Amino acid sequence: MTILERVRSGEVPSEIAEVAAAEHVDAKTLAERVAAGRALVCANRSRRAERLVGIGEGLRTKVNANIGTSRDYAEVERELDKLDAATEAGADTVMDLSTGGDLRVIRKAIIERSKLPVGSVCIYEAAVRAVEDTGKGILEMTPDGMIDAFRVHAEDGVDFITLHAGVTRDVIAKLESMPRVCGIVSRGGTFLAEWVKHRGEENPYYARFDEVIEIAREHEVTLSLGDGLRPGALSDANDAAQVAELHVLADLARRAQASGVQVMIEGPGHMPVHLIAEHVRKQKTLCGGAPYYVLGPLVTDVAPGYDHITSAIGGAVAAAAGVDFLCYVTPSEHLSLPGPEEVRAGVFATRIAAHAGDVAKGIPGAADWDREFSELRRARDWDGQIATCIDPKLARELREKGRPHSEDVCSMCGEYCVFRVQDELD
Amino acid sequence: MTILERVRSGEVPSEIAEVAAAEHVDAKTLAERVAAGRALVCANRSRRAERLVGIGEGLRTKVNANIGTSRDYAEVERELDKLDAATEAGADTVMDLSTGGDLRVIRKAIIERSKLPVGSVCIYEAAVRAVEDTGKGILEMTPDGMIDAFRVHAEDGVDFITLHAGVTRDVIAKLESMPRVCGIVSRGGTFLAEWVKHRGEENPYYARFDEVIEIAREHEVTLSLGDGLRPGALSDANDAAQVAELHVLADLARRAQASGVQVMIEGPGHMPVHLIAEHVRKQKTLCGGAPYYVLGPLVTDVAPGYDHITSAIGGAVAAAAGVDFLCYVTPSEHLSLPGPEEVRAGVFATRIAAHAGDVAKGIPGAADWDREFSELRRARDWDGQIATCIDPKLARELREKGRPHSEDVCSMCGEYCVFRVQDELD
Repeated sequence: MTILERVRSGEVPSEIAEVAAAEHVDAKTLAERVAAGRALVCANRSRRAERLVGIGEGLRTKVNANIGTSRDYAEVERELDKLDAATEAGADTVMDLSTGGDLRVIRKAIIERSKLPVGSVCIYEAAVRAVEDTGKGILEMTPDGMIDAFRVHAEDGVDFITLHAGVTRDVIAKLESMPRVCGIVSRGGTFLAEWVKHRGEENPYYARFDEVIEIAREHEVTLSLGDGLRPGALSDANDAAQVAELHVLADLARRAQASGVQVMIEGPGHMPVHLIAEHVRKQKTLCGGAPYYVLGPLVTDVAPGYDHITSAIGGAVAAAAGVDFLCYVTPSEHLSLPGPEEVRAGVFATRIAAHAGDVAKGIPGAADWDREFSELRRARDWDGQIATCIDPKLARELREKGRPHSEDVCSMCGEYCVFRVQDELD
Repeated sequence: MTILERVRSGEVPSEIAEVAAAEHVDAKTLAERVAAGRALVCANRSRRAERLVGIGEGLRTKVNANIGTSRDYAEVERELDKLDAATEAGADTVMDLSTGGDLRVIRKAIIERSKLPVGSVCIYEAAVRAVEDTGKGILEMTPDGMIDAFRVHAEDGVDFITLHAGVTRDVIAKLESMPRVCGIVSRGGTFLAEWVKHRGEENPYYARFDEVIEIAREHEVTLSLGDGLRPGALSDANDAAQVAELHVLADLARRAQASGVQVMIEGPGHMPVHLIAEHVRKQKTLCGGAPYYVLGPLVTDVAPGYDHITSAIGGAVAAAAGVDFLCYVTPSEHLSLPGPEEVRAGVFATRIAAHAGDVAKGIPGAADWDREFSELRRARDWDGQIATCIDPKLARELREKGRPHSEDVCSMCGEYCVFRVQDELD
């Protein structure tokens, strides 16, 4: 039986109990939320990550770091360095999005090394294999190859797999009937849309969704239903094609959950800041409260080099509105494959967004961290502040870079430090 | 006659026409907004900044960069470097917050060099002068010294001056009746609160507000009514003391406007993300739509080293809700006096927040920038993207750092670039 089946039968599996304890929530309450499909625990049956991670209602907003090779940068060691950087910076999960080198070797090395749950995108492997096997292009993918890629990822121990099952013939037709500035920007979405259009066949992940469900059941893989039509420009946000795909994903989520498979929904992407909360409410309503996992949202298109910041803005607003899981974006997005330094910057920016959302959502313990920290700030306890803040290493560096003459203040205000003035005069 | 008096008499002064042209808004409409106190143009009579800046309803959200010495770092050359960094990064205004060295020499050097409108905080000068003249502490400030500091700043050509006139005996009593984690975190607020408490006299900027108005009228100085009681911790946000001060500032704003002096209101500070929009609406209602100028808001306390990001989140949400003017926060905030590098990071993060807000507010041209940029992205026009994005220098660096093997894509996706795949197959 899967975790979802066990909680439905009234059990509180050890995975649920462990996550509940880490999150300071009641295990039975969490089990009920998982049973209702409003929360989940990532835990491939063949592998037990050192840290189990729960995602969904009432839980801390989680942060994913994408790593993985491209054809231009295909060294596994670099990706393991990025895994270490993400883990040290406090990511909750990592996804291996490799498209260069021997994908299975890289995936296994990442899973072997990772303390965190690992996610992946199976269509990349189907595409790269087709290109390598035929010497031609992605149109050479076969339905069996796509299903097989999902099975291999599940067997390798991946905890959650992105499945671009919503890019159906109908959804593609909807997209083609309307203008977009940036069309499709999801790689998986692009591969499938092109394949469907050229082959005239239905998306195999949609047509053969029951097979996918069976594999996911067998291996306790969480399905992450990918939004192949996520907007890649503010102009394209919340258009009818995006919404049409979300309706398909909502149906697929219900089918998977009915078969005992845990599901989350993936979301955008580029979106103006004032449209985010409404969009999140729509996802939650349509998808019966299924956990929502978003990339960004990026609140402007014009800031390559700063997309960890454009995403932190959107991510905080999205989390405050109910999003459960944020995929980081690094400063390198749209410009180059990130290295460990950009991974670190992306994780911290996204953790800030997630935490800001958790304070808004009233997640247990979230506001307490701010209060505890601010009490140390008021006490001018510099060692305490550095130990308690989100990134002690950076905080120490910046304090040292502009050393104060007096150890009990900082060099911004020096002797006019408000807390020192108050302590002396009150 | 002041600008405010001239627009009330039906004129469209050249300052208004110039700002209207730069913002692509109708000059008469802008004049009406200025007449109603819902917008303003910073323009000290004795000095004309190269770029006139308008702030308020219907105008692009503006970004201020704080520069200035502390006792620990008091070299004027470093501050001029920071001025240059802020200007190059696209700040709309700078404020000189110096508290170390010869304050008047530094201020004049900054005003002399600056192409942008310059703001300042006069109470700092009153405090530093009192300390230097008496060899004692800030309690030695005199009412005449405080008014004189305001006059000298106005005479030196400062375009907008922060006045901590809301820290009155009544407001301080309100604060003392309730617990706060971080008490007062504004330097000006602290100086005045301690002075009022120890001397038992009323805040001179409040008691002698008519004198301030006369000086401001004479020199066409915009009053920036400072929030001495801005919250410095999430726990302290939106408490009764903060709101009590805001009521005082609203009354003072009406008095200044009635006398022909342009006014904006300053705001927080540290505030949970879900409370920001409501707070902005309260300010706008209480203050008759007067321009709102906020520091942050910082949506968490726990991220020193990343407070440009915590502020960008809050700033975007605030701007989307109607805030008109964002004061940047640098990564050094709470840790050390920033250098040019941190100034640059702070300006760009805040410009992103302002622009995200402008897209939400529907400011003319804001969304067009994103659309134009995304069309270049779709066309894989890399030179065009770099030329059009917010920080061409950084974008070029990051692209070079992870050079692609093929010039028409980036190294993140390489040959699997979605736009290249679509161009080849569609």
